[in-house]
Amino acid sequence: MMGGDYAPIEVVKGIRLFRDEEQGTRDEGRVELTLFGNEQRIAALMQEHGVAMDGIKIVHTSQVIDMHEHPTKALKEKQDSSIAVGFGYLAKGLTDAFISAGNTGAMMVGSLFSIKAIEGIQRPTIGAYMPRENGKLGWLLDAGINADCKPENLAQFAMLGTIFAEQVLNIENPRVGLINIGEEEGKGNLLAQAAYPLLKETTGINFIGNIEGRDVFMDKADVMVCEGFTGNVILKLAESIHDLTERRKIKDEFFDMFEFEQYGGVPVLGVNKPVIIGHGISSAKAFKNMINIAQKMIEKDVIGLIKKKLNN
Amino acid sequence: MMGGDYAPIEVVKGIRLFRDEEQGTRDEGRVELTLFGNEQRIAALMQEHGVAMDGIKIVHTSQVIDMHEHPTKALKEKQDSSIAVGFGYLAKGLTDAFISAGNTGAMMVGSLFSIKAIEGIQRPTIGAYMPRENGKLGWLLDAGINADCKPENLAQFAMLGTIFAEQVLNIENPRVGLINIGEEEGKGNLLAQAAYPLLKETTGINFIGNIEGRDVFMDKADVMVCEGFTGNVILKLAESIHDLTERRKIKDEFFDMFEFEQYGGVPVLGVNKPVIIGHGISSAKAFKNMINIAQKMIEKDVIGLIKKKLNN
Repeated sequence: MMGGDYAPIEVVKGIRLFRDEEQGTRDEGRVELTLFGNEQRIAALMQEHGVAMDGIKIVHTSQVIDMHEHPTKALKEKQDSSIAVGFGYLAKGLTDAFISAGNTGAMMVGSLFSIKAIEGIQRPTIGAYMPRENGKLGWLLDAGINADCKPENLAQFAMLGTIFAEQVLNIENPRVGLINIGEEEGKGNLLAQAAYPLLKETTGINFIGNIEGRDVFMDKADVMVCEGFTGNVILKLAESIHDLTERRKIKDEFFDMFEFEQYGGVPVLGVNKPVIIGHGISSAKAFKNMINIAQKMIEKDVIGLIKKKLNN
Repeated sequence: MMGGDYAPIEVVKGIRLFRDEEQGTRDEGRVELTLFGNEQRIAALMQEHGVAMDGIKIVHTSQVIDMHEHPTKALKEKQDSSIAVGFGYLAKGLTDAFISAGNTGAMMVGSLFSIKAIEGIQRPTIGAYMPRENGKLGWLLDAGINADCKPENLAQFAMLGTIFAEQVLNIENPRVGLINIGEEEGKGNLLAQAAYPLLKETTGINFIGNIEGRDVFMDKADVMVCEGFTGNVILKLAESIHDLTERRKIKDEFFDMFEFEQYGGVPVLGVNKPVIIGHGISSAKAFKNMINIAQKMIEKDVIGLIKKKLNN
């Protein structure tokens, strides 16, 4: 509840939105929410925004990890922070997923150390939604967590991205493209050259070959894999396009998709439980969407599917 | 004259544009042009478009290297192609610069093998103009020739880019930024981490530190350095933005800058003579600009300045 620039008020409003949409749409019953943060503030805000407290539990935490704190140090020193306590609950199985728009580094460190990578996953990863001209989102990974990668990492990203795109983005048989600087096999830097044959051999993914910078916003591949350096440059460049179109007062359906904040957070893929990390500037809508993503990952058993694929 | 999708007609029209603009603006006298290609076709087109032949020489060549031919093989087998003969003239000192919108690979191979890298330059490079919100072009390099780089290569790109930005783009004391995925020193992949201290030590450049994907189109750095993989992804992504805004009928001064074709070609930096490579779809305006860039590189003695910097 304490993570993000507009916390906790936007989180509370996001829960309200989620509950409003949830009503009557689910047979399985209400999603149970456990909220970590300052109990008094949260309770007051929940009342103020008219959120019913049934199915909601508040766990009081007295500390907050700021956006610019060193992740490992902060998690160690602030054991009563909302992030630290939240991961504790997740690790103990008291919750099934964990969502925060707080310190990204602390969320990553928490994921890796408290719930850990799935056995067989070399490098858990974070992806990014990519607007595409066809109006549907693509999925780019790695988006910046793994700056240096081995070819095998890229093959695993392709598998993880495929499962996420299928189960959560509802893309059937998603096309996997290798981000590269030429169309034919053999093109690219050493990493891309080595990753291509590996991706070709990887079972259970629909590898369509290389894609280039010009294809990222097009309907060419649904899952786009690269190391986290290129991925992060692409993501931040794409984010800047929204600022540019906004400043230049361009109103356009496609370019509106570059308002990344609307999508909610992205999952850490490859760890043992669903963890959703939100953008610092997350709004109510983003928080609502993050709960939706977490819920979908639980319902579709994304973690189970990843484990199954690894044991194939 | 035979390179590019609209050759030779757009080249002829480009020469006409160049001559029209040149009139009365230069004290040093007319730029002498040597045209390589099918003499009969060129002569006819020159007459048709009313280009005076004084100061213009046509060298007949009987072969053309197509866009998709293998560069080394094509240059070897087609010794009477406009590109092969053109490089021959350049190497012999019969011309001072060479311009073509033909097969990029053949232009690179020709540069490296016939006129060669300047002594001390490890990797000649090609850059790309980058539109920026302030209305001025930035300069990104490497744009795709060197997919894998060492930190020292990036430091040389910074030096080469600085001289080009100063002399040809008229940017005073250009700010050099290292494309990276974090702002502070120490961030990034192994290459960027190692390049940062090298760039800090490099004399004669104005290194401002790391820049991120979001800064590429902003007024943050004038010269942006990275390896050719990331650079090429950025360039092609930027090129696709023009297609997108055009298809979506967005008219905007800044986004109009993404029509890369208007800038003419880019120089191969780090070789012993000015070589300008144009986009396949180069139009008359692009060819005119390419002559301007070549002329400026000669007048400002860009190659001499690079050699001087290397001997410092």
